[in-house]
Amino acid sequence: MCDQLRWDYLSCYGHPRLQTPNIDALAARGVRFRRAYVQSPVCGPSRMSFYTGRYVASHGATWNGVPLKVGEMTLGDYLRPLGVRTALVGKTHMRADEEGMERLGIDPSSIIGVRVSECGFDPYERDDGLHAAGPDGRYDPQVPRYNRYLNDKGYAGDNPWHDWANAAQGEGNKLASGWAMRHAKKPARVKEEDSETPYMTRRAMDFILEAGDRPWCLHLSYIKPHWPYIAPAPYNTMYGPQDVLPAIRSEEERRDPHPIYREFMDLRVSSAFAREEVRAEVIPVYMGLIKQIDDQLGVLFRFMEECGLMENTLIVFTSDHGDYLGDHWLGEKDLFHEPSVKVPLIVCDPSPEADKARGSVCDALVEAIDLVPTFLDALGADWRRQSHRLEGRSLVPLLGGGAPAQWRRYAVSEDDYSLLPVAARLGVAPRDARLFMVADGRWKYVHAIGFRPMLYDLQSDPDEFRDLGADPAFAAERARLAAALEQWSLRQSQRTTRSEEEMLAARGEAPRHGILIGVWDESDVPAELWSRYLGDDK
Amino acid sequence: MCDQLRWDYLSCYGHPRLQTPNIDALAARGVRFRRAYVQSPVCGPSRMSFYTGRYVASHGATWNGVPLKVGEMTLGDYLRPLGVRTALVGKTHMRADEEGMERLGIDPSSIIGVRVSECGFDPYERDDGLHAAGPDGRYDPQVPRYNRYLNDKGYAGDNPWHDWANAAQGEGNKLASGWAMRHAKKPARVKEEDSETPYMTRRAMDFILEAGDRPWCLHLSYIKPHWPYIAPAPYNTMYGPQDVLPAIRSEEERRDPHPIYREFMDLRVSSAFAREEVRAEVIPVYMGLIKQIDDQLGVLFRFMEECGLMENTLIVFTSDHGDYLGDHWLGEKDLFHEPSVKVPLIVCDPSPEADKARGSVCDALVEAIDLVPTFLDALGADWRRQSHRLEGRSLVPLLGGGAPAQWRRYAVSEDDYSLLPVAARLGVAPRDARLFMVADGRWKYVHAIGFRPMLYDLQSDPDEFRDLGADPAFAAERARLAAALEQWSLRQSQRTTRSEEEMLAARGEAPRHGILIGVWDESDVPAELWSRYLGDDK
Repeated sequence: MCDQLRWDYLSCYGHPRLQTPNIDALAARGVRFRRAYVQSPVCGPSRMSFYTGRYVASHGATWNGVPLKVGEMTLGDYLRPLGVRTALVGKTHMRADEEGMERLGIDPSSIIGVRVSECGFDPYERDDGLHAAGPDGRYDPQVPRYNRYLNDKGYAGDNPWHDWANAAQGEGNKLASGWAMRHAKKPARVKEEDSETPYMTRRAMDFILEAGDRPWCLHLSYIKPHWPYIAPAPYNTMYGPQDVLPAIRSEEERRDPHPIYREFMDLRVSSAFAREEVRAEVIPVYMGLIKQIDDQLGVLFRFMEECGLMENTLIVFTSDHGDYLGDHWLGEKDLFHEPSVKVPLIVCDPSPEADKARGSVCDALVEAIDLVPTFLDALGADWRRQSHRLEGRSLVPLLGGGAPAQWRRYAVSEDDYSLLPVAARLGVAPRDARLFMVADGRWKYVHAIGFRPMLYDLQSDPDEFRDLGADPAFAAERARLAAALEQWSLRQSQRTTRSEEEMLAARGEAPRHGILIGVWDESDVPAELWSRYLGDDK
Repeated sequence: MCDQLRWDYLSCYGHPRLQTPNIDALAARGVRFRRAYVQSPVCGPSRMSFYTGRYVASHGATWNGVPLKVGEMTLGDYLRPLGVRTALVGKTHMRADEEGMERLGIDPSSIIGVRVSECGFDPYERDDGLHAAGPDGRYDPQVPRYNRYLNDKGYAGDNPWHDWANAAQGEGNKLASGWAMRHAKKPARVKEEDSETPYMTRRAMDFILEAGDRPWCLHLSYIKPHWPYIAPAPYNTMYGPQDVLPAIRSEEERRDPHPIYREFMDLRVSSAFAREEVRAEVIPVYMGLIKQIDDQLGVLFRFMEECGLMENTLIVFTSDHGDYLGDHWLGEKDLFHEPSVKVPLIVCDPSPEADKARGSVCDALVEAIDLVPTFLDALGADWRRQSHRLEGRSLVPLLGGGAPAQWRRYAVSEDDYSLLPVAARLGVAPRDARLFMVADGRWKYVHAIGFRPMLYDLQSDPDEFRDLGADPAFAAERARLAAALEQWSLRQSQRTTRSEEEMLAARGEAPRHGILIGVWDESDVPAELWSRYLGDDK
């Protein structure tokens, strides 16, 4: 998994200037999904959906820093009983529910406590990848092992993550911090081999070597190409302004926009990316960071080949959300235009059943929550028996080129913008600062609590320039999609302690335990039952 | 709390034949709510909503026997930190989430494990009150202390709950089991003082004596007047057929009913209660059981008066749902007519602030989920700080006769009928076998997944005989209530690990931890920040 990688910044997804041969080769061996949506275009909630197989409104960790409540099952909880060691190298953006653990008497230092704190993964090399600090202290209280690694390599200081890996050399003794985008094109102060992406790749290989023959599932989770936008040489200069594609934006979008969209356009990051100067400086570096990931995946895949692992390892390449990069007059993510909510998704299944679909593309609507069921299915477990918890569905049939008769008709994504200045400026309470996207492949509908909806027609307007949310001509489409959202919102998402199977088996169970409702006289039930259990002869 | 007590079977609620002076006296000292709805007209889910302060779709224990998932906070979790011992005497109908406890390493015999297993209460005398057995074993695996009590008193056998407390003497050596309603009027074989209601009342008094001066909250939870409909003498003959009110039903209801309603009318219990013979036999005993509860509450209240506890104890009298008793051609509960979903609710607050409202009635729409916030409020805790978990609201302002400017406009109740023959006959999958009621005081709308809605106008049709769910003339009302349901269904119910307050405080927090998004150059942030945290001088 990459972080903040747009769906269209890979050559196999059509980027004309950025060549990603290793990822392309994976796509050539697997299936490339062209309509893969994340459950929230924000790191934390998106990842919690990837890991739990559940919508954001179901698991409740709606934004970065909102703890995933104790008891929500994650990938590790599903795979561990199958004998699969499930580990993490890199980022999760998960906050542990310390209050919940304390209330339930779970010692955070116990094996279970550690797993609960690490989002269900076995600890190996967790590094959430944002080690900033400010007047209120560190953003991430955990000091990464990577900092010690850098110190050992001679990169000095308290926070070499920032001072070396995410800063360039400024004038005189000054640092040119990667937090200031004007420095983007300068080389990071670390050697390339000591930057985050190669480091994490090596840690992944360490894990694989150590894991040996026991089955494993590794979540290799790169922080890049997420900001701070800064790359080590030679990736910092590999691309230039001539490689930057024009922004997907239109003056039409700034005329009377939806009030929430307007506020997002007014954010500092949006104003910055509205400037060509910023795009010309930053986007080439964003591309360089992707190129570095591609190169490192080449290293990893060659290593796996040497270990004989390419024949028996299911590989998924994806991202937690995209990056506007100035499209639609926006920076960052959060809203539901394609550059933000759509992600690359390539799944390479080594099994013979997948042979006939290798190198194909799939246009089915798929969601981040489909991965947990896919992994269970690939391991031979019946994921449908977990459908009282898992809200996604296995992609395995699609990996074999199948076209299931029943597939989802809508993808849903959510955004909790309550921590952004947008909510403050609009005066929206945290519990109401929420957006819901319903996309059916052509239409994209956004329900905004307290505001009018937005609507886009990707067929007549593939660039999503025209918001039809207030256009009377499209009332019927809006009503149809609103009805789909209502149906979704009433889904059974919290009856997680009894499976559908168990519920079916329990139908009519009470009488067999002697609960006889509405019986007038003994002849209403079998005589044997009566005499044996109801003490006819006492 | 009573079980299956209709809202209108108390003299203070207008029953013309059943005198309940002790409950009436409580109402005279408190506020009597005339529009109190439960969150589900079924024991288990209703109680889980009373205890968690959350809607059924939020806590997920949608039917009897569906475990309440580990981590859902209940009354005890809210009150214990305030120094209030929170205990249970009687019924909960809660199943522990043993799988969840095991996954989280919670030892069921530890203090926390015991509380999790007892729905958050400190154990004192749990007795879920239905100790039936059949070919598949016991309905409730826990053998109640009450059985030992009966054995000690000389009532012999494995299951004296059934053989003595819920059965009469039949012909010869045979038992006349209470499970056969034709025996309803016969006296139970136990002496009145050894029947369930007086026994639990004594256990409540034992608890109060033992608790001493430390603050406590006691959930005294009678199983009666729930079936088996059988009462000890003299309550079995205290009322007769002449005291039975005519059934609230109309031939109109049987002409082309909603398909789900039709299936409920076809249940054995409904057919039984459609017969006058059954009503004439059973309802007088149902009334006798209520009379016994009233008498026992008289005993309890006198005891509390002697202990000086009436001046400092908040008392709530309510029920978990009603009983059709043949109304609307139905038996039992499950659907949303007033006899099923509305409950009596009397709250007597001893504080001087409540003086001016004593003896008053309140027509505000109140819900079962309001009790946890009410208890917190009465104890001086700020319940609104728990509004990320608690979905109800404190009734304390209403107890003082206040009319809050903002009050809820809709009450919501839910039913999961997946375990009933209704779902099997209609071919509805467990996840879809759900009904949602939205009531605004006048209109009552029922959303039925996969079926048309139902609609009743309690103003023009107070007896709820005319289902307007398919009548084109009422499309606008249905649309309005469907929109209310959609709004409800999109509520933020699972972000339970961060309060609204914490979310507000975290707005704009990231920059203070050094996360600087969209910064072009150093001048975009305060110089001090830059030099101190971003290593300007390295």
